[in-house]
Amino acid sequence: MSLNNLLEKKPWIGWAVFLGSLTAVFLLGLLAASIMERRSEALIAFAPKVQIKSLDPRNSKWGENYPREYNSFLLTQEGNFKSKYNGNGVVDMLEQAPAMVILWGGYGFSKDYNQPRGHFYAVEDIRKTLRTGAPKSENEGSQPNTCWTCKSPDVLHLMKQMGIENFYQGKWASAGPSIKNPIGCSDCHDPKNLNLTITRPALVEAFARQGVDINKATHQEKRSLVCAQCHVEYYFKGSDPKKPGTNLTFPWDQGTTVDNIEKYYDALEFSDWTHSLSKAPMLKAQHPDYEMWKMGIHAKRGVSCADCHMPYVAEGGIKYTSHHIQSPLNNINQSCQVCHRESEEVLKNNVYDNQTKVTEIRERVEQALVRTHVEAKIAWEKGASEEEMQPILKLIRQSQWRWDFAAAGHGNSAHAPLESVRMLGHALEKAGEARLLLANVLNKHGVAWPIDMPDLSTKEKAMAYVGIDLPKLKGEKEEFIKSILPTWDQKYNEFEKSLD
Amino acid sequence: MSLNNLLEKKPWIGWAVFLGSLTAVFLLGLLAASIMERRSEALIAFAPKVQIKSLDPRNSKWGENYPREYNSFLLTQEGNFKSKYNGNGVVDMLEQAPAMVILWGGYGFSKDYNQPRGHFYAVEDIRKTLRTGAPKSENEGSQPNTCWTCKSPDVLHLMKQMGIENFYQGKWASAGPSIKNPIGCSDCHDPKNLNLTITRPALVEAFARQGVDINKATHQEKRSLVCAQCHVEYYFKGSDPKKPGTNLTFPWDQGTTVDNIEKYYDALEFSDWTHSLSKAPMLKAQHPDYEMWKMGIHAKRGVSCADCHMPYVAEGGIKYTSHHIQSPLNNINQSCQVCHRESEEVLKNNVYDNQTKVTEIRERVEQALVRTHVEAKIAWEKGASEEEMQPILKLIRQSQWRWDFAAAGHGNSAHAPLESVRMLGHALEKAGEARLLLANVLNKHGVAWPIDMPDLSTKEKAMAYVGIDLPKLKGEKEEFIKSILPTWDQKYNEFEKSLD
Repeated sequence: MSLNNLLEKKPWIGWAVFLGSLTAVFLLGLLAASIMERRSEALIAFAPKVQIKSLDPRNSKWGENYPREYNSFLLTQEGNFKSKYNGNGVVDMLEQAPAMVILWGGYGFSKDYNQPRGHFYAVEDIRKTLRTGAPKSENEGSQPNTCWTCKSPDVLHLMKQMGIENFYQGKWASAGPSIKNPIGCSDCHDPKNLNLTITRPALVEAFARQGVDINKATHQEKRSLVCAQCHVEYYFKGSDPKKPGTNLTFPWDQGTTVDNIEKYYDALEFSDWTHSLSKAPMLKAQHPDYEMWKMGIHAKRGVSCADCHMPYVAEGGIKYTSHHIQSPLNNINQSCQVCHRESEEVLKNNVYDNQTKVTEIRERVEQALVRTHVEAKIAWEKGASEEEMQPILKLIRQSQWRWDFAAAGHGNSAHAPLESVRMLGHALEKAGEARLLLANVLNKHGVAWPIDMPDLSTKEKAMAYVGIDLPKLKGEKEEFIKSILPTWDQKYNEFEKSLD
Repeated sequence: MSLNNLLEKKPWIGWAVFLGSLTAVFLLGLLAASIMERRSEALIAFAPKVQIKSLDPRNSKWGENYPREYNSFLLTQEGNFKSKYNGNGVVDMLEQAPAMVILWGGYGFSKDYNQPRGHFYAVEDIRKTLRTGAPKSENEGSQPNTCWTCKSPDVLHLMKQMGIENFYQGKWASAGPSIKNPIGCSDCHDPKNLNLTITRPALVEAFARQGVDINKATHQEKRSLVCAQCHVEYYFKGSDPKKPGTNLTFPWDQGTTVDNIEKYYDALEFSDWTHSLSKAPMLKAQHPDYEMWKMGIHAKRGVSCADCHMPYVAEGGIKYTSHHIQSPLNNINQSCQVCHRESEEVLKNNVYDNQTKVTEIRERVEQALVRTHVEAKIAWEKGASEEEMQPILKLIRQSQWRWDFAAAGHGNSAHAPLESVRMLGHALEKAGEARLLLANVLNKHGVAWPIDMPDLSTKEKAMAYVGIDLPKLKGEKEEFIKSILPTWDQKYNEFEKSLD
């Protein structure tokens, strides 16, 4: 039977095909309409409501145009992983690990060191930490304005106004009244087109010294580089190459590994401070997150900071980048599971397993280094000579530099666990070598070995040992918070009116 | 225009549809025929040509039925990764790392230790190593038959015939004439159905002590467990729990990590040997490949030994498991790239990066341990007491155990690099602590510190220091190879005739 005959005998078949087609086309039309609607929604969503001036530091102002990004940024007020805190709640790391008070003896971090909090708290936390002290006037205090560089988009104004070097050179209290907005929109975005932008000079300079124009980086590279403006090892360069000055500088000229950066500092004979117990010329590692990320498998696979810490999310018809920057472990389904097919539980435990191994060795180094500092102090007291102590102090510097590089990076044991333990292995060895030399020096000066270790088991005991008067520091800071900060806020509010 | 009318006006459309269908059905038929052909090819390929008796040790006999698997097994004659060798070529590890001669002072491994070669060489290598000595009769020599356990399927016969314990108790030379086939088919397969089978008692017993019946493991589990029959940490248990005996035993009763296994040995006060320099009660780690694999990400993702070391390959219409067991780095496209989408170059460099970090710390530990053994030797010579030395010897034992566990596993830095460096970190610390105590003891006994280290920079110098007469050992072995081995082969050939 031919198709002709079939259709002649059963004409309803032809009609069925026809009606089926009509229905399909109708449904297709509905789908197209829905897509168009979503697109117009998106267009409306991204139509700017207000005009944002270049360098406008007010995140809330940007938020009027980009409410989703802004609202997710506001979530950085919420907890971080493993340490849910509310409002002002903080995790006191010196209480958790009193050894750090000894390791940083004579340096600001021994006074106060809290677990890092969300970007939202950047200004609040630097105002309140004991490390910035309690300056009563704009010319007082130990820290320079350089400390503000990574805390607020307000510094962009100041740098433009004063010139970069001049800005750095002022005392920390001098810029205080001009800074209020925490790390935010204009730190990484160009208001004209929202493109990612490197706004901080130190990163641009560090790449320029390698002959690289960072502004030519791809968008995906910038999704890590905007973070590298701050999440790096840095130091304050001064006119005397051996001592900290005020110019924010990334010590990357010989490379970005812990060994390369040490070479850079050693060549300058630079030290951040002289240890108050051992008298060793110390280096303080900041948070070399970018450097450590580069050593890990995620960087090697082309995964950027934003891919994990700022994953794409969808709300209504709109896909956007979450600005709730946080540990991916807090958000495994939207970050890790984009690539990894394992369960949240499995992925979390993989990271924990690595963290546990790194922490285990890190704590061994801390205990060894505490002993070295204390033994060195006693050696000096018993009359050890500069010549006897010099190789010991060098080993202490080398060991603690590696420990600090591994300990100070926020996500080191997730970013590059193997590199972390490699560094810590060297740190353990060097601390052991220092103690070996110390045993010999102590013996020569008639000190019975092993020495009796003081009780340094709590933050208070450790602080007493390095001579920190915590109640005094806290009292001064409280006075500063009560009497000085309101004047800063008042001045800022006046300045803020000029922004519109 | 209705479909009816259309077909009436243009009848060729109906014919075109009809002919199109015919062509499609014809092509489908061709495809089906090709599939059927491949299947029948496969059926022919797997039809047994010869009947294989249970426990038949002759790999070549099995090869008549399974030529692809057998031919790929023969390829284990070829090079291994990073060290292509031909025929009898070997890589002398003691030449590469003379420190090992010192670390194993007083133990067989200090005489001879070559880079592991393919399964094909298992019998040849154990016959020729200086570690098995040059026994002139079947009751001579230091090693028991236990050493044969993992070298040949011939031991299955002997174990059945003699009973397992009796087999273990004989001298190594006693079973020599009954063993000729290298590790092969019947070690892992049941000839009836080719199922994976655990043939070695030690693994079955180790799991049974945990209440687990290993024979109930899944096929995928067995794709690792058949390897775990041999690629594990083991010791020879005897009637005196503190000393090596002859019963092959896996020390897993407290777990399989380096720390768990140490607890097991410590509870027994077991030591493999007393170090000839330091007099420390030492543990020798064998090749804890299975244990280390379990600590790594591949095991955590359910990837078995065979998945990487014996990937599926296709030849003609047949897919089979390659028995050319080797480093996956030698065969990245067939092993790694089944899961990983990166280029061969990238994947290889990822492994190399990890290896480099592990090796870097491993070599630090070796240097530290060499010093500890030498310093301990001098301390004894200068009159140190048992009481003074006891804590030092314990630290040496603990440190070297961790070093050996990290160093002896064949692919440790690929299987579990982080765990390797974690162990090595502890090893470095403990060696450092031992040296610290030693410095104190040496000082008390009037020895100037640091001591002058002897030159141990070559295998020859290190052997002279631990009192190994290499030419003598080599001469005896050559005599053994010339006069004894031919008698073994002759006896085996006679026995072989009884197999058919």
